[in-house]
Amino acid sequence: MTQQLSDPRERFERGLRALAAIDGEAGHKVVDALADIAPDFATYLIEFPFGDIYNRPGLDLRAREIATIAALTAMGNAVPQLKVHIEAGLNVGLSRDEVTEIIIQMAVYAGFPAALNGLFAAKEVFAARSQ
Amino acid sequence: MTQQLSDPRERFERGLRALAAIDGEAGHKVVDALADIAPDFATYLIEFPFGDIYNRPGLDLRAREIATIAALTAMGNAVPQLKVHIEAGLNVGLSRDEVTEIIIQMAVYAGFPAALNGLFAAKEVFAARSQ
Amino acid sequence: MTQQLSDPRERFERGLRALAAIDGEAGHKVVDALADIAPDFATYLIEFPFGDIYNRPGLDLRAREIATIAALTAMGNAVPQLKVHIEAGLNVGLSRDEVTEIIIQMAVYAGFPAALNGLFAAKEVFAARSQ
Amino acid sequence: MTQQLSDPRERFERGLRALAAIDGEAGHKVVDALADIAPDFATYLIEFPFGDIYNRPGLDLRAREIATIAALTAMGNAVPQLKVHIEAGLNVGLSRDEVTEIIIQMAVYAGFPAALNGLFAAKEVFAARSQ
Amino acid sequence: MTQQLSDPRERFERGLRALAAIDGEAGHKVVDALADIAPDFATYLIEFPFGDIYNRPGLDLRAREIATIAALTAMGNAVPQLKVHIEAGLNVGLSRDEVTEIIIQMAVYAGFPAALNGLFAAKEVFAARSQ
Amino acid sequence: MTQQLSDPRERFERGLRALAAIDGEAGHKVVDALADIAPDFATYLIEFPFGDIYNRPGLDLRAREIATIAALTAMGNAVPQLKVHIEAGLNVGLSRDEVTEIIIQMAVYAGFPAALNGLFAAKEVFAARSQ
Repeated sequence: MTQQLSDPRERFERGLRALAAIDGEAGHKVVDALADIAPDFATYLIEFPFGDIYNRPGLDLRAREIATIAALTAMGNAVPQLKVHIEAGLNVGLSRDEVTEIIIQMAVYAGFPAALNGLFAAKEVFAARSQ
Repeated sequence: MTQQLSDPRERFERGLRALAAIDGEAGHKVVDALADIAPDFATYLIEFPFGDIYNRPGLDLRAREIATIAALTAMGNAVPQLKVHIEAGLNVGLSRDEVTEIIIQMAVYAGFPAALNGLFAAKEVFAARSQ
Repeated sequence: MTQQLSDPRERFERGLRALAAIDGEAGHKVVDALADIAPDFATYLIEFPFGDIYNRPGLDLRAREIATIAALTAMGNAVPQLKVHIEAGLNVGLSRDEVTEIIIQMAVYAGFPAALNGLFAAKEVFAARSQ
Repeated sequence: MTQQLSDPRERFERGLRALAAIDGEAGHKVVDALADIAPDFATYLIEFPFGDIYNRPGLDLRAREIATIAALTAMGNAVPQLKVHIEAGLNVGLSRDEVTEIIIQMAVYAGFPAALNGLFAAKEVFAARSQ
Repeated sequence: MTQQLSDPRERFERGLRALAAIDGEAGHKVVDALADIAPDFATYLIEFPFGDIYNRPGLDLRAREIATIAALTAMGNAVPQLKVHIEAGLNVGLSRDEVTEIIIQMAVYAGFPAALNGLFAAKEVFAARSQ
Repeated sequence: MTQQLSDPRERFERGLRALAAIDGEAGHKVVDALADIAPDFATYLIEFPFGDIYNRPGLDLRAREIATIAALTAMGNAVPQLKVHIEAGLNVGLSRDEVTEIIIQMAVYAGFPAALNGLFAAKEVFAARSQ
């Protein structure tokens, strides 16, 4: 196994940039909210999901957010994170209609309640952005 | 509420076409396997997911399969259907590397075991197609 | 495979009737809440669960609501829908004690927290109906 | 809080009788399989689900098995137990068609893959009983 | 199978003592909240989890609360119970840092959203105890 | 936020050592199985769970494996990983009886089927080690 190990400072910085580009304000709020209970977890969040995964070249951010919105809708137990990623999807170029389509499709795989709760989460995000 | 109600014969036929185009041989096998226990469920499967959802214009099939592969990997309790949709993803234009990327990303949202089991499902599908 | 395809207008109308009979006011609220974000999803909700499934002759509505209350309690990630179906169960003839029994039983299959959260959902529904 | 505490011998004996009546041979197999690793857990299984819950007067066994088949189908991660309870449902008076209806309905609440996997579990149980 | 059946009064009393020692005030609140809807369920809660399981000699309460905090964080659909058991963990000797470590670790097995929501639940419990 | 960033080579090496110490042979098998489909994922697995999380000082390995066995039993959809961590628990000092206790306790939080399937996984691991 040959692995490419990235410079830790570079990894952290590119994670921060990805977090800002993808999650915007919501990303900062999560990092801040962790400061007094688990600051190391904020570091991991920046390093692994954003520094490692979202920076991988094999899939663009639009496709990555489709995957995340679908997964969080289907799992149905992480509404705050679903809202962050509905925002993120819009930030990286998904239209509101595309977000809605992804969530509707989850009725097939995770049931109508999961899709309904996803749609109501989207409705809140869309309303907040329209103000 | 204004709803467009499609002709039931047309809906069923376009569902069958979508099932064939997306799931290929695996779609036929599922329909056949249901014949002696719940043939009506095969009809619903053709009508609703394939006749209604996959034919909606707002999202292309590539994006739809990204969503489904992500959701089924994250849920982790539907390996046979995940394999069918890894096949389907390849059928509609995802590369093997893109399928692998989607599954890897699920480690962030559903944990490393979900991603590992998804990767091993993909490995089986890829091996079977390479024969 | 021989499938009986119902007239789409008839299917939609019988779905609307089933939705009204089963979910009552709560059903209308869900349809209304979807109007500005995903009106097509309201149509699917009326057509497939209510027009197709709840109208199937092989199981009466009382048995169907037992199944749904059990499933939503066990899944534990769809409390709004669980409340709608606790109402629905009472609407189609389940007693409060029967609803409570179904939820208690879920402690065996999905754990005590799922049953507890189900009981507290039922308590809210019962209290609202008693006013 | 006034609680009725049952005699432990009586509780265990009525649990054993309920286990035999509901799960039949499958119940004995589970108890036997636990003998060398966790015999106390077999005791709990007899005492709590069967001695306590299934003997409660507020819901008949037919309704209880509808609830359990629905929940295990929807959860999707306990296929061996789902098969035991499909058997149990038939033992306490559900028809094969009724079992199939319950499972089909779960497509609405837990998605098509959960219902499909439940139907294939039922198909195996029905086939084994037909031999 | 030889099973040791405990005196039901003794079992209930030791369950009550365990509930008080582990869950403290939160345990009483749950029992009280069940009084008007399902008092028998409060009895089961005292008897089985607390009278039977938490009194078993093979694992100390500290280890048992590590297991419960981990499981409830990973499941992600029982936040009220997770909070009760974060309290319980502190009651039986876990430090705040240890509770935080357990929850952080769940990012690996259940994903970052489950760990994040667990950390925010811990933050609320810690804040309430610091007042 | 001040974060300590570790040298990537050191992080990878300590992850490899932790993987070997905790998962033993099973860890190597997982890494090997990923070689042809997602070698980067093996790197992440070594770096994040093992290099970062299992090396954190706030909780000993015994406590960490209690948490992991509990979570994987409760989630119920990752049996291969549960088996690896039952092995790991034994490797870091848990007795077979302690592993069994953790799994039994999950009946309370995730239901009897989850505990049963966990016990049968443990039975397989114990049997393989006794040969």
